[in-house]
Amino acid sequence: MMTHVIEPIAQIHSPYPEKFAVPRQPGLVTAATADIELLPPFNADTVRGLAGFSHIWVVFLFHQNLAQGWQPMVRPPRLGGNEKVGVFASRSTFRPNGLGMSVVELLEIVVHGGRTLLRVQGGDWVNGTPVVDIKPYLPYVDAVPEARGGYAASAPPANMPVLFTESARQQLQQLKGQYRDLPTLIEQVLQQDPRPAYHKNKVSDKVYGMQLYDLNIQWQVLNQQNHVINISKDF
Amino acid sequence: MMTHVIEPIAQIHSPYPEKFAVPRQPGLVTAATADIELLPPFNADTVRGLAGFSHIWVVFLFHQNLAQGWQPMVRPPRLGGNEKVGVFASRSTFRPNGLGMSVVELLEIVVHGGRTLLRVQGGDWVNGTPVVDIKPYLPYVDAVPEARGGYAASAPPANMPVLFTESARQQLQQLKGQYRDLPTLIEQVLQQDPRPAYHKNKVSDKVYGMQLYDLNIQWQVLNQQNHVINISKDF
Repeated sequence: MMTHVIEPIAQIHSPYPEKFAVPRQPGLVTAATADIELLPPFNADTVRGLAGFSHIWVVFLFHQNLAQGWQPMVRPPRLGGNEKVGVFASRSTFRPNGLGMSVVELLEIVVHGGRTLLRVQGGDWVNGTPVVDIKPYLPYVDAVPEARGGYAASAPPANMPVLFTESARQQLQQLKGQYRDLPTLIEQVLQQDPRPAYHKNKVSDKVYGMQLYDLNIQWQVLNQQNHVINISKDF
Repeated sequence: MMTHVIEPIAQIHSPYPEKFAVPRQPGLVTAATADIELLPPFNADTVRGLAGFSHIWVVFLFHQNLAQGWQPMVRPPRLGGNEKVGVFASRSTFRPNGLGMSVVELLEIVVHGGRTLLRVQGGDWVNGTPVVDIKPYLPYVDAVPEARGGYAASAPPANMPVLFTESARQQLQQLKGQYRDLPTLIEQVLQQDPRPAYHKNKVSDKVYGMQLYDLNIQWQVLNQQNHVINISKDF
């Protein structure tokens, strides 16, 4: 059958420079805002009227995964990483055609110096993600609250407490003002427990690291609690 | 920026051989079922586990519109075809990258003779539409019933009564058994008033025609009522 060439219409600026800390679904980490910047020739005209909608669909490419291709069956983290389902029965980021879609809240549209930015809340994208379409969210069409959600019927629990050591607290204090609501962002990301499924039932004092913006966050998991031990800037 | 080549993973068999009668959104014409047939190498494995979900996302190409390209601003029918909004503030079928997405109810998965068909209800696709992705609908992620829907806050009214002339009734009687629930399908499609916006306030005895399956349906609009006058087979 036909093939079809698609091209980014926008690019995402997000707090997640790497895949590791990216929440598994949009809306889980509300403290994360992202800017979707239209690429030329797409300009403010192409989003006129969009501000009347509270939510938008963002259709994008899992660009960091494209080179690795796909498998017919995957092991969704929601099934503990053991059971296999078909790739089309999952929201796996490794999929034929590499297309993702997320609904997010549209906070504002910023038009400034020839740039058009859609500021959104709660996106689940790696920084630099290419966007291939934006559509208004139509609740009468897109919302099916009574739908049966199979093995992912409800949101994953986000109940891993997050504690900051005294030195991490001091580091947060120094960074205050440079990053919007950083403590909440770290907290919400770690509550989701971004560790791979096969680490979750291990007892270990391993120090995990993740990037948020240009920061490196280190933490340990002790007694099913996250302990943030260090926050440092990349050089 | 990068370009990306996508390729159909499935093809849709629907009752709509042409764009004219296709409902503007999925779910409006529930009497329409469609079969989404996986294309090789995509097989039953790739949808294993999907039957646990009541609804699925179908990401597809507006293949009949691709050659015509897109415009930065469009006139959505919901605004009477007069007012302009940006293409990304609309669900227009003429859009950069030509991608559409619809949520539909998954009725069953039929695996037969090496073919894998996903039977769905209420699709809004022209027959032959190429599908580029299928994803389970996750209500906790995708359903935002409280979202503000801008100029399309609620479903378009579907209140144009549909009457069948005596001869149309007889034709329906003869076709009974060959087409599943044909009278309801015709009724639901015409209740949506598929005529172009600029015809809607005209008084005229024009005979309109539309295709459903291999049938040609003719009707007139008199006193804001649809009168089905003839149903014939294509040769």
